[in-house]
Amino acid sequence: MSADNQAACFGHGGNVYAWAREHGREPAVVLDYSANINPLGLAPGVRAAISKAVGEVIHYPDAGAVMLKAAISSYYQVNAECITAGNGAVELLYVLTHTLRPQRVLIPAPAFSEYERAARAAGAGIEYAYLSPANNFTLDVAGLSRRLTSIDMVFIGNPNNPTGTLLTVGQLEQILFAAAQSGTIVVVDESFMDFIPGDREYTCRPLLKQYDNLVILHSLTKFYAIPGLRLGFALTQPALTARLHAAKDPWNVNSLAQAAGVAALSDQEYQGRSREIVHYEKDVLYTGLKAIPGTTPLPPAVNYILIRIQQTAARVCQAMAERNILIRDCSNYPGLSPYYIRVAVKLSEQNEKLLTQLEQVLR
Amino acid sequence: MSADNQAACFGHGGNVYAWAREHGREPAVVLDYSANINPLGLAPGVRAAISKAVGEVIHYPDAGAVMLKAAISSYYQVNAECITAGNGAVELLYVLTHTLRPQRVLIPAPAFSEYERAARAAGAGIEYAYLSPANNFTLDVAGLSRRLTSIDMVFIGNPNNPTGTLLTVGQLEQILFAAAQSGTIVVVDESFMDFIPGDREYTCRPLLKQYDNLVILHSLTKFYAIPGLRLGFALTQPALTARLHAAKDPWNVNSLAQAAGVAALSDQEYQGRSREIVHYEKDVLYTGLKAIPGTTPLPPAVNYILIRIQQTAARVCQAMAERNILIRDCSNYPGLSPYYIRVAVKLSEQNEKLLTQLEQVLR
Repeated sequence: MSADNQAACFGHGGNVYAWAREHGREPAVVLDYSANINPLGLAPGVRAAISKAVGEVIHYPDAGAVMLKAAISSYYQVNAECITAGNGAVELLYVLTHTLRPQRVLIPAPAFSEYERAARAAGAGIEYAYLSPANNFTLDVAGLSRRLTSIDMVFIGNPNNPTGTLLTVGQLEQILFAAAQSGTIVVVDESFMDFIPGDREYTCRPLLKQYDNLVILHSLTKFYAIPGLRLGFALTQPALTARLHAAKDPWNVNSLAQAAGVAALSDQEYQGRSREIVHYEKDVLYTGLKAIPGTTPLPPAVNYILIRIQQTAARVCQAMAERNILIRDCSNYPGLSPYYIRVAVKLSEQNEKLLTQLEQVLR
Repeated sequence: MSADNQAACFGHGGNVYAWAREHGREPAVVLDYSANINPLGLAPGVRAAISKAVGEVIHYPDAGAVMLKAAISSYYQVNAECITAGNGAVELLYVLTHTLRPQRVLIPAPAFSEYERAARAAGAGIEYAYLSPANNFTLDVAGLSRRLTSIDMVFIGNPNNPTGTLLTVGQLEQILFAAAQSGTIVVVDESFMDFIPGDREYTCRPLLKQYDNLVILHSLTKFYAIPGLRLGFALTQPALTARLHAAKDPWNVNSLAQAAGVAALSDQEYQGRSREIVHYEKDVLYTGLKAIPGTTPLPPAVNYILIRIQQTAARVCQAMAERNILIRDCSNYPGLSPYYIRVAVKLSEQNEKLLTQLEQVLR
């Protein structure tokens, strides 16, 4: 299997370049609903910080990522000694599994496919905790906790991607407590947490001091619309932070991403406006989707919506791509039938276009 | 040990941000002779490509790195199926050791310290092949080849950093042949090869088809002056290429680095001029260094020069830093005494400044 096919098998969204090659068109033409990126795009201050930093690429990045870590520390109220900065959150998934080499890994299904890919890359065997459409894919916290006795590492997206389900910090502490008994590492992926207005009820950050088996992953590329630059971080107790640093390239976060991160985390206006708009538009889009015959959208927590449809996702995605709209075919998620698609939440005008085109394709 | 200290113990050059913090000054003020970056700086076409790509960071990078691999394939005359694109060559060192998990690793000493760090990160035990100042740190090819029977992976910088010694492809094939008998992976780091006018006598690229135990690492950050962006690649036979792809983050190379790489590899004018200037200036600088009492520079192959001095490197580097010139204290290299420094080769005017200041400090 070629490297390109290998990547394709895990079939992520956001492949605008592959789409452009296939359709012989410019990436700019496409309306990308397959990647869950803040529809407000680059904040002006972030764009300016990137442009200003272009001249600095003749120097190595700051290997200590000191300014970036200070910004993360201040914004998220965590000790800098707990932060590992990453070339995207996904890089840190691989650093984590390569470092800890878990043998038995438990992953809810469906979930972000890189959990499984990173675990397999380090030689792990995978067990799935299947989530049921009957209860909107809600995780059975007690059931999962009981399964941890034979598990080295468990991954939990909060909110989970692609289902959009959200656990409270109380539920996560139940899992962490059980995991501590069995020596299980709990990786809580909070990559979409920034979209939630007031995350206090949900984030595990306050549990960091208490649980040395907790790893929080956090992407900065989705909320700040910089997936092309790559930026994320992990939060762990200092001992594990030191191990992660020893196992990674010291220059993993490029200079522009470091500068963009510092600018992004200081932009309260953009943060507030993003949360407000996405929070509002997700409900409008959800309502619009429910009105299309033959679609059953799941209630969204953040900026994406999983939708059950009555035709195969492959056909629908293909038809939408011909209309220059990329949506996520979810049929390659373990735990989902071929009848699921996922769409991002964008701005009002774009969402209306999506609804119109989707209704026509599904008719 | 804190993460910052952990990185500091491997004491790389190019820490302009740490210097700026320590001295309370702007990074732009420093003359950085501690990192071996092309003194011509960003090629205009590369700068333009980066600036143009800034607007694209709202999309994920091309996970297939198709355009970049096509450019590498065409420029270096290698099959695209052999290429793994990296977030710098150093990222790929870690991907490689985490993937292959060598138990016993042989490293010439002195050599680039990330070989050891990446090997240790994956749990390897380290043996050194000490190079002797008596013969200008030339590698004993036959001796090294004999030692491979008990070795899983050997690293060879060609040219070697910090010594600047260069092996011919014939010598490397001797090592590869012996290594094939013992099942040893040979990692040849050609990160400075682009600086050599006419690399045919030295590069291992023609051996790729023949040896499945050969890994060529190649940085694009030094020759194209983009260390802050991160860009490099590995060349291996397709089977190992597929394993490396499976073990890494699919989005490891950011969009700007991909765009910069494509632009860089097409700029023949910059390539020719860089080689010519560096080739000339290295000899001028070498001659200038020889004329300073108490210094013994080693004959350089590319854009850096190792120098034996009669005072401790720590004192000299400190004194130079106070004059806003960073040079590399080499006393933390296994295999070197505390009396070695390394300087980059820059443009004529800068090199004269270096010589003047160094002479004053050493007086």
